[in-house]
Amino acid sequence: MITSRRNSLLKDIRRLGRCKGGDELLLEGPHLIAEATACGLELRTVLATPDFVAGAAGRRLLPRLPRRPLEIVPELLEEVTDSDSPRGIVATARLPRGGVERLPIRPDGVYLYAEGLQDPGNLGALARVAEASGVEGLALSPGCAHANHPRALRASAGSLLRLPVAVESSGGELAERLAQVAPRWLALVAHGVRNLFEQELTGALVLALGAEGPGLSSAIRERADLEVTIPLAPPVESLNATVAAAIALFEIRRRRTCAGARPGPE
Amino acid sequence: MITSRRNSLLKDIRRLGRCKGGDELLLEGPHLIAEATACGLELRTVLATPDFVAGAAGRRLLPRLPRRPLEIVPELLEEVTDSDSPRGIVATARLPRGGVERLPIRPDGVYLYAEGLQDPGNLGALARVAEASGVEGLALSPGCAHANHPRALRASAGSLLRLPVAVESSGGELAERLAQVAPRWLALVAHGVRNLFEQELTGALVLALGAEGPGLSSAIRERADLEVTIPLAPPVESLNATVAAAIALFEIRRRRTCAGARPGPE
Repeated sequence: MITSRRNSLLKDIRRLGRCKGGDELLLEGPHLIAEATACGLELRTVLATPDFVAGAAGRRLLPRLPRRPLEIVPELLEEVTDSDSPRGIVATARLPRGGVERLPIRPDGVYLYAEGLQDPGNLGALARVAEASGVEGLALSPGCAHANHPRALRASAGSLLRLPVAVESSGGELAERLAQVAPRWLALVAHGVRNLFEQELTGALVLALGAEGPGLSSAIRERADLEVTIPLAPPVESLNATVAAAIALFEIRRRRTCAGARPGPE
Repeated sequence: MITSRRNSLLKDIRRLGRCKGGDELLLEGPHLIAEATACGLELRTVLATPDFVAGAAGRRLLPRLPRRPLEIVPELLEEVTDSDSPRGIVATARLPRGGVERLPIRPDGVYLYAEGLQDPGNLGALARVAEASGVEGLALSPGCAHANHPRALRASAGSLLRLPVAVESSGGELAERLAQVAPRWLALVAHGVRNLFEQELTGALVLALGAEGPGLSSAIRERADLEVTIPLAPPVESLNATVAAAIALFEIRRRRTCAGARPGPE
């Protein structure tokens, strides 16, 4: 039983909770831990409260874990987790993010390039929507939150554990190499003239989007073959990045999965 | 200058910050206050810090207000606001919510019926998406957060000030009367067999949706003419209510605004 806040495992977990990057991540709560084991991540440290181990959630989860958790007093576990509702168990694992080689190459694959999404919660929500829409992978610009941030992982409901994620270096090589995989880039912008719903959306493509306020950089807009806009009912002027991505990605999905679907005005 | 936390205006504002209902609301920050005046709401109390009044944001906003704000020391203003980043000004206003008579009647109007959305932030985000998609109005079940909750107002970026909102009584009369306005009800469900994108979505209709976990009650599902589902790429099993509503409402909007748009599979 861990009872001291100076325990070295707790120090590691505290450090991961402040995630600023790196290959290790902190999984908070039984749901994320179950998702991680389901997708083959190897758990390293696993800490749980005695109540969790003895309770119903523990009886469901523990048989799926490689070994019995180390027990910890609840107050210490609460201290090191950021979760609004700590669920009695945390684990660490290793999940390296890399360059474009992380992304599966498919001739008609859809890729999402996110620029400047600083908020981990927004990044997680975006990843969840992207996975639900069937994208091959997610590429993140240098200014984005880290995909291993505990809040991003929680908000993604596991999608950030499963979805291939590549991280841009400061030199911009990822965008360059991604453009070789999927040469057609669409930039989703708030105030453009081309209605997303009226464009051709076939073949391999990259949908690029930025945070709601700043939008996309001119570098990414210049790379794009086409700027597309979701037409909004006035006076609403913009949507948050996750909602905009959901509408665009599910329009792309509709075209690919509903036989005979065509752009709006055909 | 207000310098005492026992000032009676501050007591009113504290009460509104804990909003549990009622016709009065608390507007935090210059953006929401500007939206409120733009849509004709009459401001009652307006409190601002001296820095706000003297600064650039104040010089922009103050000429649009009916009168000069009462000044307040910054620490007290921070104390009474819930905002993550207090912006130096708050105001109160009155915005009654009512029954179905609040909703404009249009022969081909789209209405959103939200059930059990307890989180004010989620309700606000949903209202923003609903307004952006061009719905006529929003109907809220008894278990929903109050549309005048400060966090709902902030998350809606002003949409909850503009969008007609009707609130269900415990007797269910709103759903009954809304069904007279728009007889066709679609229930958005997570695990149904009918693909939303392949259904007819013309004419006046109500889209009903519930919170992500519990979904819709059996009473509302029984009222619906059709249960529709957004098909997700596995293993994702559900979307949050705002994202699901955005995808469905913008599919409805696409059909109505893109000439020649038809259901997916034809």
